[in-house]
Amino acid sequence: MPAAFVHRLRVRYHECDPQGIVFNANWFAFFDVALTELWRDAFGSYSALVNRGSDVLVVDASARFRAPGRFDDEVDISLAIQALGTTSMTTATTVRRGGEVLVEGRLVHVFVDPATLAKQEIPAAVRAALAPYIVGE
Amino acid sequence: MPAAFVHRLRVRYHECDPQGIVFNANWFAFFDVALTELWRDAFGSYSALVNRGSDVLVVDASARFRAPGRFDDEVDISLAIQALGTTSMTTATTVRRGGEVLVEGRLVHVFVDPATLAKQEIPAAVRAALAPYIVGE
Amino acid sequence: MPAAFVHRLRVRYHECDPQGIVFNANWFAFFDVALTELWRDAFGSYSALVNRGSDVLVVDASARFRAPGRFDDEVDISLAIQALGTTSMTTATTVRRGGEVLVEGRLVHVFVDPATLAKQEIPAAVRAALAPYIVGE
Amino acid sequence: MPAAFVHRLRVRYHECDPQGIVFNANWFAFFDVALTELWRDAFGSYSALVNRGSDVLVVDASARFRAPGRFDDEVDISLAIQALGTTSMTTATTVRRGGEVLVEGRLVHVFVDPATLAKQEIPAAVRAALAPYIVGE
Repeated sequence: MPAAFVHRLRVRYHECDPQGIVFNANWFAFFDVALTELWRDAFGSYSALVNRGSDVLVVDASARFRAPGRFDDEVDISLAIQALGTTSMTTATTVRRGGEVLVEGRLVHVFVDPATLAKQEIPAAVRAALAPYIVGE
Repeated sequence: MPAAFVHRLRVRYHECDPQGIVFNANWFAFFDVALTELWRDAFGSYSALVNRGSDVLVVDASARFRAPGRFDDEVDISLAIQALGTTSMTTATTVRRGGEVLVEGRLVHVFVDPATLAKQEIPAAVRAALAPYIVGE
Repeated sequence: MPAAFVHRLRVRYHECDPQGIVFNANWFAFFDVALTELWRDAFGSYSALVNRGSDVLVVDASARFRAPGRFDDEVDISLAIQALGTTSMTTATTVRRGGEVLVEGRLVHVFVDPATLAKQEIPAAVRAALAPYIVGE
Repeated sequence: MPAAFVHRLRVRYHECDPQGIVFNANWFAFFDVALTELWRDAFGSYSALVNRGSDVLVVDASARFRAPGRFDDEVDISLAIQALGTTSMTTATTVRRGGEVLVEGRLVHVFVDPATLAKQEIPAAVRAALAPYIVGE
């Protein structure tokens, strides 16, 4: 079974709030940063995907926060595509600090035309390029 | 049946990304802004809640994005407490622009001791102050 | 002498960092929020300005932080146009909480063509609409 | 003459606004990210500095924006301490993409007691650890 795609980043000071922990919304931003790196790995870059005629919009996002992240933590964000539908992509996200799971999330993106943002069927070439990141549930 | 608590805010320019729409993570930040206003309505302020010996942590957050929000939109964020458990509060969020629903979300917070961030039972006085915001599912 | 344009906003929880004070970069975002309101006052909206064929870019920004802002503070951001050059606008910003000055700043914007982002001379109609906000140095 | 300390980072999608360029306030956040890395280089970490009894507050920040940064750009942020006063540190910042200068900035921090945020004289050991980053004007 293929492993999930993993991107490491370091928590910035201003991404933490007065409680001293990562503000909840920032985890969703981190998911997006990791996805940008998956696009890079699969297509060269997110812009390359858009230049091919496909863009994505988030239609569903969720996260369970199991333990707080803190300033200067290095966290590993793993992305595993769980399903590629006709127009949508479902991705499981897991954030780990060392062995500990901090956050588990799930994103659903729809593919859209970059100019009109109207839904599009995932083109065959895009589907093929994403196949290596599909991890069975 | 009581109505949900509603807070209006205006989308800022930098809360939108190069797609020209509200970046998905920012909706979760907006939920938090609206909750701050609910605390003000119920307790005088969030700080007043903390000074009474109770703080909250988000343990679960989800959102379904039905239509994009744009710069300068005025949006109404409604919060309806769906359940107050022993230690947790579940809140349904809805974002509307005029009559149109843009985002539907759900948050689960746990009450914690402000100093230790350890879980605490929701104190009776806090529970009483939140009762008016409970909306049956 | 005309008074500066003033916009009030409330500091959000996640705009403060683990020191418990407004993160320095966020003050510059607040300046931008206030400027959006000045555009609204002068042109109907920022979009109306862009639709007339003029956009702006920040080319210079500075701030002196005299006292920290904190979560839930209501602050008044005043903007006073100090100079309208051929292509640029210089604005003095002051943030107050009650009578206390928290931040003093200065922004320089250049006017640009919205499509190309190339510098443009400030159109006469734009100059006329901004005249009421000019406050002598 | 010693070289400036340099930190490379990649511009994230949501750090750009609907103009498609880095939102001006985010450059100040990037300066802070680079400074965190200077602390790591000099003291082991920012937390190590705080644990020694010293924290810093920004009292002055400025930037000249010479060219826009864009999504996915890799930029090099260089920091050069220009002066260590009795209680303050002045730092020149330069952001480059390849050979091109995008932003030139200047920060003034004051050293403070971490508990009270009251000004403190820069301790001799801190001064010694920062000496290698001082670059003559």
